[in-house]
Amino acid sequence: MSYDVIVIGSGPGGYVAAIRAAQLGFKVGVVEKENIGGVCLNWGCIPTKSLLKSAQALEYAKHAADYGVSISGEVKADFEAMVKRSRDVAGGMSQGIQFLFKKNKIEAINGYGRLKAKGTVEVEDDKGEKKSYSAKHIILATGARSRQLPNLPQDGKKIIGYREAMTLPKQPKSMVVVGSGAIGSEFANFYHNIGTAVTLVEYMPTVVPNEDEEVAKTLERSFKKAKMKVMTNASVESVDTKGKTCKVQVKTKKGEETIEAEVVLSAVGIAPNIENIGLEELGVEVENGKVKVDDFYRTNVEGVYAIGDIVHGPALAHVASAEGITCVEKIAGQNPDPVDYGNIPGCTYTSPEVSSVGLTEKKAKEAGYEIKVGKFPYTASGKAKAAGQPEGFVKLIFDAKYGELLGAHMIGGNVTEMIAEMVVAKKLEITGHELIKTIHPHPTMSEAIMEAAAAAYDEVIHL
Amino acid sequence: MSYDVIVIGSGPGGYVAAIRAAQLGFKVGVVEKENIGGVCLNWGCIPTKSLLKSAQALEYAKHAADYGVSISGEVKADFEAMVKRSRDVAGGMSQGIQFLFKKNKIEAINGYGRLKAKGTVEVEDDKGEKKSYSAKHIILATGARSRQLPNLPQDGKKIIGYREAMTLPKQPKSMVVVGSGAIGSEFANFYHNIGTAVTLVEYMPTVVPNEDEEVAKTLERSFKKAKMKVMTNASVESVDTKGKTCKVQVKTKKGEETIEAEVVLSAVGIAPNIENIGLEELGVEVENGKVKVDDFYRTNVEGVYAIGDIVHGPALAHVASAEGITCVEKIAGQNPDPVDYGNIPGCTYTSPEVSSVGLTEKKAKEAGYEIKVGKFPYTASGKAKAAGQPEGFVKLIFDAKYGELLGAHMIGGNVTEMIAEMVVAKKLEITGHELIKTIHPHPTMSEAIMEAAAAAYDEVIHL
Repeated sequence: MSYDVIVIGSGPGGYVAAIRAAQLGFKVGVVEKENIGGVCLNWGCIPTKSLLKSAQALEYAKHAADYGVSISGEVKADFEAMVKRSRDVAGGMSQGIQFLFKKNKIEAINGYGRLKAKGTVEVEDDKGEKKSYSAKHIILATGARSRQLPNLPQDGKKIIGYREAMTLPKQPKSMVVVGSGAIGSEFANFYHNIGTAVTLVEYMPTVVPNEDEEVAKTLERSFKKAKMKVMTNASVESVDTKGKTCKVQVKTKKGEETIEAEVVLSAVGIAPNIENIGLEELGVEVENGKVKVDDFYRTNVEGVYAIGDIVHGPALAHVASAEGITCVEKIAGQNPDPVDYGNIPGCTYTSPEVSSVGLTEKKAKEAGYEIKVGKFPYTASGKAKAAGQPEGFVKLIFDAKYGELLGAHMIGGNVTEMIAEMVVAKKLEITGHELIKTIHPHPTMSEAIMEAAAAAYDEVIHL
Repeated sequence: MSYDVIVIGSGPGGYVAAIRAAQLGFKVGVVEKENIGGVCLNWGCIPTKSLLKSAQALEYAKHAADYGVSISGEVKADFEAMVKRSRDVAGGMSQGIQFLFKKNKIEAINGYGRLKAKGTVEVEDDKGEKKSYSAKHIILATGARSRQLPNLPQDGKKIIGYREAMTLPKQPKSMVVVGSGAIGSEFANFYHNIGTAVTLVEYMPTVVPNEDEEVAKTLERSFKKAKMKVMTNASVESVDTKGKTCKVQVKTKKGEETIEAEVVLSAVGIAPNIENIGLEELGVEVENGKVKVDDFYRTNVEGVYAIGDIVHGPALAHVASAEGITCVEKIAGQNPDPVDYGNIPGCTYTSPEVSSVGLTEKKAKEAGYEIKVGKFPYTASGKAKAAGQPEGFVKLIFDAKYGELLGAHMIGGNVTEMIAEMVVAKKLEITGHELIKTIHPHPTMSEAIMEAAAAAYDEVIHL
């Protein structure tokens, strides 16, 4: 079988590249060893948001009286139903992509794909049978998996990764979550909110360590206020899984401590899937554990491209999608701009939510900028108060010289939706005063953006 | 007593103008006959959002099982608690403004203010005592009130306005809401959701008649799906309030119908408060029932300015605030740009939410534009599905020639927060392709904006 484009991997990098390629007139095949949609749809972005929505609904029910809603009986999490809902949502999304494949005449090839020769992909199905497919352009979009650490060997039962965390047969009474990036923090938040006793262990000085320090500290305070145990500057030395519960040896500056828990979730990052896909055989260059590509995702081997988690840049679904589109448009002879890695939003869907784009205060200073910083708290937002979500703030960083927006950092209700405004603003190089003079609707939480800009220029009204 | 600036009215036009004036070094007094914060804070934007949040919490509790939350007992609205929460939120906000007045050394003058002479305001307190205050600049920001119609004479008990609707002593079993603009639709939605049998009567062919037709029809369908009775192309001929219930005579194309209800809410628009404030005495020009002003809110009388609901432009809190700031900055000798009335967002906080900015499809065509329209439904949004909110869409209108964004129209979850992105985008004259290439975080509802732009250019991925 012969294609114009074969994509290996059907995650948000691969399937989006495939659809865009089909739109541009290519004959496209997509190799997938498991579920169409990849980790994002089946084991990541989508099903976790479903679980977190369940936790949010539980919060509303628990605090119903605060809103004037009376509930006479008992409110509790039905863990199995939450997991089922999450799987149903993921399944529906995966079917949706299959529908899009059909609509775009994209062929899904079931099996494990690897580069065989220039222009050739070999696909091995689950019976071990191998077939070869040829294509002028081969896009590697094989994604990543949960990273294994020697002192946290995942056995899928007691020491688990994000996949198992999404489909545990029953709700654990206690859990240690190791790593407080987006994945770790979201699971810690979910399980804690539904009643599991969670200990969150972070090696760095703050949770969500890539975020702005003030944001990170606010999230940590919020977790602690909800009685989650949070340990920062802490490393897991070993886990003893021999007994009924796991005994997790955690080392902090104060010494060592043993935490007992039913389950340990390892969320210490991801490892790109670059093994056994034929890179070495074809001489595709790898650098720092990732496939080396140019601005248009071309590897050193003609006709071989790589996108998503296996290349440089943040391992995020929306980045992979943008890379896939850029890669394919270039193949089609269009003239796309390279992806601007300085303008990639990041979201953590905890409660409160966290989002950001661009430089943090610290990084802006390190980059040599003289900056103006504006901050506006949700306690001063009418909408946040009316919504019963007064926790959080918006913090904006401007270049003092030209007024250009350098970064936006937010924590609080709705901030994962609000960050898109900042991405548009940064793309179009908005200045502080242009943002102050952009009329935001009242009452919304987005007003906090306008006010934060005004705060940077001593023009804030509601502070 | 003598000031640089006196503002009559402390709503979102007046109090914001006062704070900005104080920041710019003026000595400022604000005359208020009732509560600091005006209608918006006390009887409008803020308390209604609080009530709607309560209705939302009730919805979550009622549909808890859908999210995997089990509730053993009965779920019901505690109307008094909802109203109390709403009043508390409003009270807290009003106190917040009083705090800001103190911080900015703004003097609040209690009483009814009117222009007495050039540079003089007379304030009458509730005992009828009058005092005169002088100021070089007098800003009229007296706002508006519920409009009275002859066939809907508000008595505050059976035929009520928005104020009474916010503080009814008990939840009515049935209600007729006349007028389906933002105020009417929000109250209809709130009361219907907490269990009042609501009939919504609209004179125009669709509900929220200022919105894009597709949006309006989607909202109407949603209301009807929730079993609200919605009558469009319908006019209220008379209301008989003599009996225990009101008998509302409604005329439609099919004939006349009598609707019985405990209470009738008149939400047929607002009337600017321009009477008895000294306009005639000073010869301040009035045009079409509003004070005539130039781009910087100067009336024909030197030293007298007017902003907010009593001048041209949409009667919205955020517009009044922007006008107040522009007015004061000009007085201070700054060089503010005039408010761009073509880029004012509007929000309706029903469930689903509605928001828009710029031209509708119809108006863009009427204005002679050749247009490209892109639409993306929430059913194809992973985040909307995970959130259990698959109802709604984003619709964008672009100028076909230059690609400029002309309008954005949205209905669905979070759209009142998402519209701010479109205001920034319009302000900076974004093109369709710039928007398509703005990386939106996954998974968010805001991705629907990027996809709607892509749909306009046949580059949509998830459709």
